[in-house]
Amino acid sequence: MNSSLDEARRVFKVAPFITALGCQLDKLEAGVCHSHIVLQEMHQQQDGFVHAGVQATLADHTAGTAAVTLIEQGQRVLTAEFKINLLRAAKGSALVCHSTILKPGRMLIIAESEVYARQADNSLVLVSKATVTLAVTNK
Amino acid sequence: MNSSLDEARRVFKVAPFITALGCQLDKLEAGVCHSHIVLQEMHQQQDGFVHAGVQATLADHTAGTAAVTLIEQGQRVLTAEFKINLLRAAKGSALVCHSTILKPGRMLIIAESEVYARQADNSLVLVSKATVTLAVTNK
Amino acid sequence: MNSSLDEARRVFKVAPFITALGCQLDKLEAGVCHSHIVLQEMHQQQDGFVHAGVQATLADHTAGTAAVTLIEQGQRVLTAEFKINLLRAAKGSALVCHSTILKPGRMLIIAESEVYARQADNSLVLVSKATVTLAVTNK
Amino acid sequence: MNSSLDEARRVFKVAPFITALGCQLDKLEAGVCHSHIVLQEMHQQQDGFVHAGVQATLADHTAGTAAVTLIEQGQRVLTAEFKINLLRAAKGSALVCHSTILKPGRMLIIAESEVYARQADNSLVLVSKATVTLAVTNK
Repeated sequence: MNSSLDEARRVFKVAPFITALGCQLDKLEAGVCHSHIVLQEMHQQQDGFVHAGVQATLADHTAGTAAVTLIEQGQRVLTAEFKINLLRAAKGSALVCHSTILKPGRMLIIAESEVYARQADNSLVLVSKATVTLAVTNK
Repeated sequence: MNSSLDEARRVFKVAPFITALGCQLDKLEAGVCHSHIVLQEMHQQQDGFVHAGVQATLADHTAGTAAVTLIEQGQRVLTAEFKINLLRAAKGSALVCHSTILKPGRMLIIAESEVYARQADNSLVLVSKATVTLAVTNK
Repeated sequence: MNSSLDEARRVFKVAPFITALGCQLDKLEAGVCHSHIVLQEMHQQQDGFVHAGVQATLADHTAGTAAVTLIEQGQRVLTAEFKINLLRAAKGSALVCHSTILKPGRMLIIAESEVYARQADNSLVLVSKATVTLAVTNK
Repeated sequence: MNSSLDEARRVFKVAPFITALGCQLDKLEAGVCHSHIVLQEMHQQQDGFVHAGVQATLADHTAGTAAVTLIEQGQRVLTAEFKINLLRAAKGSALVCHSTILKPGRMLIIAESEVYARQADNSLVLVSKATVTLAVTNK
């Protein structure tokens, strides 16, 4: 039984905006979180590509969940800032996100998220990469 | 008649993800775009605050629309990267975004977005600030 | 007598790298710091423009000094992260930096730095803009 | 004979600010650049750690040199923006930087730089990580 993983699982799923976007949790271990979104028309920007805001949301939330696996009971994380590079116009059947912790810490946790677009042949193409700074605070 | 403003108005509204989030256009002039979202439960993260992804989406899309007011016919903009600082846990009746152009350019346009949360007394509190780099390409 | 301003003045001047670059303090008040560098060949990159690293150093250090004006005795600030947009190839007789605090805080202070190049006619052209996140810790 | 590698080697070494800081080129191949600085007192900030500006300069310049290995004759790169996370207070005998290309492109090249501090036992500790956006232009 691991209460940090349980709390991370709860945090990932309970956020209404994450449910609204259809984000789903794929993998969770200490310092690691994988997730995905099955892409629909609602996720698009004006030219039919996946909106940067969708990629940013998945990158931020998956990073935050990876951070929650490392905090203590009674603590929570809030995103202090993030930066995302949109590397390619994103299209595909799903958006897949892999987040890992670059630097754990008592006050600040730094995470990286790689966002991939699943292609017709099932391959994953890297479409964006984010660095996320999370502040650890008491609930 | 100004075709750049018309195109910016179209770009703001036609993006399905922007409609899904309830983003609305408030003001548009050369190099300036204002917008807002009436906040609902769907915009929240796990602790009841506005999700960083909602703030990022509004900051990015409003910045992009401000950039579209400056491009020529047959061109479009794509976000190359952005960075957002979440300054305070955001709560309120609406999220308001003001975007301006820091540096116009033929290849790259740099915009800044300030995101405010409207409080019960109608005042606006700055909750996040983003810098957005937009790449100008031919359609 | 204001010990925070005295400490900020000390921090600005005592850093060996800042002395090596010729950075000078121009103005200091609560939450504000201005500085400049008289430009020499040593500040250039390969094409004769001011190196991005010089602009970043001045932007970071001036922001940090502005933050020090707001902390308590026995505390210090360390840069957690910064992001800088180089808006134009920078040339001129001097680099001038204006830093202000976007958001004070007990744990994190967010500052912005605007870097200008002084032209032959003495006018200032904005060449870069940075957002700096500073962590406040006990000495 | 590879003119892009020759040009990258030239760009790394010819920049006066890079010489002034003592940056040295260690490895160069298509899309990859490694460099280091032997640390001296001049590289320190006010508390005796390596100044963020030194880390940023090495991260930016090594990333730019990695990008130059990928461009065509008659082109050059200029840093459009970068973001750096300072992960730990940096101390040691040398600063070592490894830069790789995250995404090549005709207009924009995105690079990542990892900066390490060499410890007394010769091990390398990651002290900062940067993402650098480089604009490709004609000379």
